[in-house]
Amino acid sequence: MKLIRFLPSGSQAPLWGLIDGESVVVTDGPGGDGTSISFPLDSVRLLAPAETPKIVCVGRNYLDHIRELGNDDQNLPAEPGLFLKLPNTLADPGAVVPYPAFTENFHYEGELAAVIGRTMKDVSEEEALGHVLGYSCAVDLTARDRQKSDLQWTRAKSADLFCPLGPWIETELDPAKSRVTTRVNGEVRQDGTTDLMIFPVARVLSYISTFMTLERGDVVLTGTPCGVGELHPGDRVDVTVDGVGTLSVSIGERA
Amino acid sequence: MKLIRFLPSGSQAPLWGLIDGESVVVTDGPGGDGTSISFPLDSVRLLAPAETPKIVCVGRNYLDHIRELGNDDQNLPAEPGLFLKLPNTLADPGAVVPYPAFTENFHYEGELAAVIGRTMKDVSEEEALGHVLGYSCAVDLTARDRQKSDLQWTRAKSADLFCPLGPWIETELDPAKSRVTTRVNGEVRQDGTTDLMIFPVARVLSYISTFMTLERGDVVLTGTPCGVGELHPGDRVDVTVDGVGTLSVSIGERA
Repeated sequence: MKLIRFLPSGSQAPLWGLIDGESVVVTDGPGGDGTSISFPLDSVRLLAPAETPKIVCVGRNYLDHIRELGNDDQNLPAEPGLFLKLPNTLADPGAVVPYPAFTENFHYEGELAAVIGRTMKDVSEEEALGHVLGYSCAVDLTARDRQKSDLQWTRAKSADLFCPLGPWIETELDPAKSRVTTRVNGEVRQDGTTDLMIFPVARVLSYISTFMTLERGDVVLTGTPCGVGELHPGDRVDVTVDGVGTLSVSIGERA
Repeated sequence: MKLIRFLPSGSQAPLWGLIDGESVVVTDGPGGDGTSISFPLDSVRLLAPAETPKIVCVGRNYLDHIRELGNDDQNLPAEPGLFLKLPNTLADPGAVVPYPAFTENFHYEGELAAVIGRTMKDVSEEEALGHVLGYSCAVDLTARDRQKSDLQWTRAKSADLFCPLGPWIETELDPAKSRVTTRVNGEVRQDGTTDLMIFPVARVLSYISTFMTLERGDVVLTGTPCGVGELHPGDRVDVTVDGVGTLSVSIGERA
């Protein structure tokens, strides 16, 4: 099932719904009960399927990406390495993200995103996926140069619109058997299967829950495969997660 | 004026209000218009004065604290060094924060917190303080050992209850002429004046707004003076910001 957050034509009030053929049925929140209200799918504008989530991200979760960044692959961490994005980073499907003024090295990182379905704290790896509402596609936009120059990855990872998310939340997916493909201007740049993650999604969620309570609607970005690279004004980025769909955004002129 | 978020006696529905003598007048949100509803001040339970804020923090903003952590003080950064906390970190005045299971070196850092009053993006240093609703006291609880061992400061700074905040938002304060004092079990451990900040509050807010849109209710922790140190189960921490008040929390048994 595909859950969406959207604007009906002519409205500025976001709604949640589910896709039913060529229609959108309005639901009582994300994954909630359906109502009697519906809209033609082609009349609505899709939004990032999240409101004010906590966004927790895994760095260096595919071995090939660790190598391409020049990091030590002989001494892999025993636990997932995490960083944060704040809700100002959310960008809608189809958004134009201005090239940030503060970087000379703006990178895409295509990712599988897990959206939490119910409160989880100290949840085992075995039970973790039962707390997930569904999965989406994300771009972890990154100012690579600021990742190195700044005290922490705050500006590098959490500037406005640095987390395009969508186009919907797919509730039926085995996150261990999916594939993340990133295209820039139609050319494949990243193409990794999720069974190559150092820490599988269930392990990541369980680990986060050892110290942080995750709530319904929170978002976890699960890491990026190898092939990250630079973006330029005018570029189009498409991230496809097999079994979910494709999220597309464009890079605008320098801010 | 002191703005509070609180629970009336016997209620689990948080309200916003302002303190008027021995009464609390319910307001329409933080700093909003007063209503005709009031409660005796001594009958309400104070909550952290924030809902689901973005929480942005400045690291190493007092020169004496940079030195005590053994960091280079000859090569000071040209811009504030920022890190993030998520809303799961909020803890109410009077809270008991369990000693976390994942650290052997749990530290207090007393801080002045600024609460944003209206949307700010690309705001100059001169105009920044005009966007502040008011000021509060915070404890930036920190797992010092995990700050060093982990990829980023996520677990070290953003675990559940790692940001006690309160007891209220004081709307009348000159943040450049205040003083932050931290006591542990009644003994003064930190005592710094805010004129010693490397980056004054106005500069910090203006800088954040160059890349992140701050919204009403967001919280900025402005750094800690020297004197940070370890906490142990049973300790009581009091952070006093002159002109605001005192925030008190206790450390519970090991989780």
